[in-house]
Amino acid sequence: MAPLIVLFTDFGLEGPYTGQVKTVLHRLAPGVPIVDLFADLPPAKPRPAAYLLAAYSVWFSPGTVFLTVVDPGVGGERAAVIVDADDRWYVGPDNGLFELVMRRAAHARLWEISARPEAISASFHGRDLFAPAAGQLARGDAPAGQPRPEGIASRPDWPDDLSEIVYIDRFGNAITGLRSALIPDRARLAVAGRVLARRRVFSDVPPDEAFWYENSNGLAEIAVNGGGVDAALGLAVGTPVAILP
Amino acid sequence: MAPLIVLFTDFGLEGPYTGQVKTVLHRLAPGVPIVDLFADLPPAKPRPAAYLLAAYSVWFSPGTVFLTVVDPGVGGERAAVIVDADDRWYVGPDNGLFELVMRRAAHARLWEISARPEAISASFHGRDLFAPAAGQLARGDAPAGQPRPEGIASRPDWPDDLSEIVYIDRFGNAITGLRSALIPDRARLAVAGRVLARRRVFSDVPPDEAFWYENSNGLAEIAVNGGGVDAALGLAVGTPVAILP
Amino acid sequence: MAPLIVLFTDFGLEGPYTGQVKTVLHRLAPGVPIVDLFADLPPAKPRPAAYLLAAYSVWFSPGTVFLTVVDPGVGGERAAVIVDADDRWYVGPDNGLFELVMRRAAHARLWEISARPEAISASFHGRDLFAPAAGQLARGDAPAGQPRPEGIASRPDWPDDLSEIVYIDRFGNAITGLRSALIPDRARLAVAGRVLARRRVFSDVPPDEAFWYENSNGLAEIAVNGGGVDAALGLAVGTPVAILP
Repeated sequence: MAPLIVLFTDFGLEGPYTGQVKTVLHRLAPGVPIVDLFADLPPAKPRPAAYLLAAYSVWFSPGTVFLTVVDPGVGGERAAVIVDADDRWYVGPDNGLFELVMRRAAHARLWEISARPEAISASFHGRDLFAPAAGQLARGDAPAGQPRPEGIASRPDWPDDLSEIVYIDRFGNAITGLRSALIPDRARLAVAGRVLARRRVFSDVPPDEAFWYENSNGLAEIAVNGGGVDAALGLAVGTPVAILP
Repeated sequence: MAPLIVLFTDFGLEGPYTGQVKTVLHRLAPGVPIVDLFADLPPAKPRPAAYLLAAYSVWFSPGTVFLTVVDPGVGGERAAVIVDADDRWYVGPDNGLFELVMRRAAHARLWEISARPEAISASFHGRDLFAPAAGQLARGDAPAGQPRPEGIASRPDWPDDLSEIVYIDRFGNAITGLRSALIPDRARLAVAGRVLARRRVFSDVPPDEAFWYENSNGLAEIAVNGGGVDAALGLAVGTPVAILP
Repeated sequence: MAPLIVLFTDFGLEGPYTGQVKTVLHRLAPGVPIVDLFADLPPAKPRPAAYLLAAYSVWFSPGTVFLTVVDPGVGGERAAVIVDADDRWYVGPDNGLFELVMRRAAHARLWEISARPEAISASFHGRDLFAPAAGQLARGDAPAGQPRPEGIASRPDWPDDLSEIVYIDRFGNAITGLRSALIPDRARLAVAGRVLARRRVFSDVPPDEAFWYENSNGLAEIAVNGGGVDAALGLAVGTPVAILP
């Protein structure tokens, strides 16, 4: 496949951050398309982002380079890493973001980026460290780092699926960290004092009814037909969800 | 003209939807520029979107491919269609989105997309069905569907112009579904208990005065110099507007 | 360096404005990457934008073309100009936006765009006048205008640094118009009744502590570790800031 760079960050699109990152990428990997997958990840929270990344990245072709930055520890001790998981590349801070991607991969390798560019800011490694590493991968360079043994997980304490809301989308639908393939068809989800049945799509549901369904990337998602669950049910990132079999 | 793909959706830019759509388009039509025209159409409301599409799409060159998705009926019975109207292409759900484009076109043809890809999600036809069809058109393929007789309108009951607010922009200006060329110069617009005169541009108007003007795509638009009409007048998508001659 | 077009506007990304501007640019300068640096500048306020532009544009390579539009006077008397400052190009309205860029440049030249395209709207010169001029520069044309003597500043009354909040970012951090290189290391900033010390990065600061630091483009920025200063301190664009030595 032709290479592609995918941005997965909490930077926002309208402010100054994503534009500077893309400038670095255009310079290092001219002609490689850059796609914004998420720019509005829950700010400074690597854990929900890790479950979204594992669910959404597998839809992309092998060879895709993910620039993955949710980085509350920027400027501190956390390492900078490159991951190859099932032939997709991931670049970002070593704070758990890649935990689920690596755990679910058939094969995974990890490099630590130890060199630092001369001109590196204290607070914007997305632009000064991670984007250069991603641009180099996208143009075909070998990963710029030292290999670490496989299987080193930074957050082995995190569960395989996360029983929480990890993202609220533009329509007010609430995505959970639960893969719906692991949930029995007739199971219900309990959230915010409500018990919700599974439906296939919105058009199967009467107006204003709350339900859950398998979203287009395989996660269990909570929705209200014709409205947002954030308003209707008071859900937010971090709200717990339980499976009732 | 070189081809161009224009996105006209309610998907938002920051969440996961537009990025996945663009990934499909880059793969099928490499090198064709993709432009975000609207990503924040009123969610799940094809009617206001239909008047915006008719007003905004004619500014683009012949050959442009519009990927047009406001799709509350996804996964249900509504058909998927391709429209050629005055040599511009439109791809999306058959729910009225193309009603005004077709009605105003000198010539229009319509195809129904009846084949379904093997890997199609229940809820994201923008990515799985419409983007592939748009990408194929953008690279020069013939429309992938069965011709339907010309002139079949799905919403013949919708008026030629819509006397309502159809969109509130970032500045808080309220765009109506009325073509200003059809409104007499001295006519006033009545909205939310106010009667507004026509002005040419903001810089002709004293601060805080509400007025209407012909916007840069030919629609009547309501504004307040130095503020938003959404806040100042309490307007929202769907608020009725009347022409006082 | 390969050419690059950078957008610096108050147009927003999701509505219709940025997409139309990019369409013009793709047509005139095919293949030249377009980057969104700011699309959410404080609406209709050239003064804070001028300090942001001077701080952020110098990070970009010579040859970059900045399409710079914050234009409350559109359709009125204000001139349209092209600036060459230290080999970067700037196109936009002559309302002070380029005041600080020119004042800080080692060399600067200015042209006035006096010709008007036949099809020009009254309210969207970003699309109809400035984007064509920027596209022509990006493809290598000479500036389309009449030279004005160097050094003509439109707003000589504006200070060299602005002791105000000029932008609140997605994380709720407040960027000032003060270059931190001019502020003594031990100086504190007074804002909204608080006195804040300087820190290096977020990860050096206890949770919920407010501080200031040099951001990744050299401006003094006010932040709260783990939250937004807009909420915590009640800051907004225009809030005054004082340096306490």
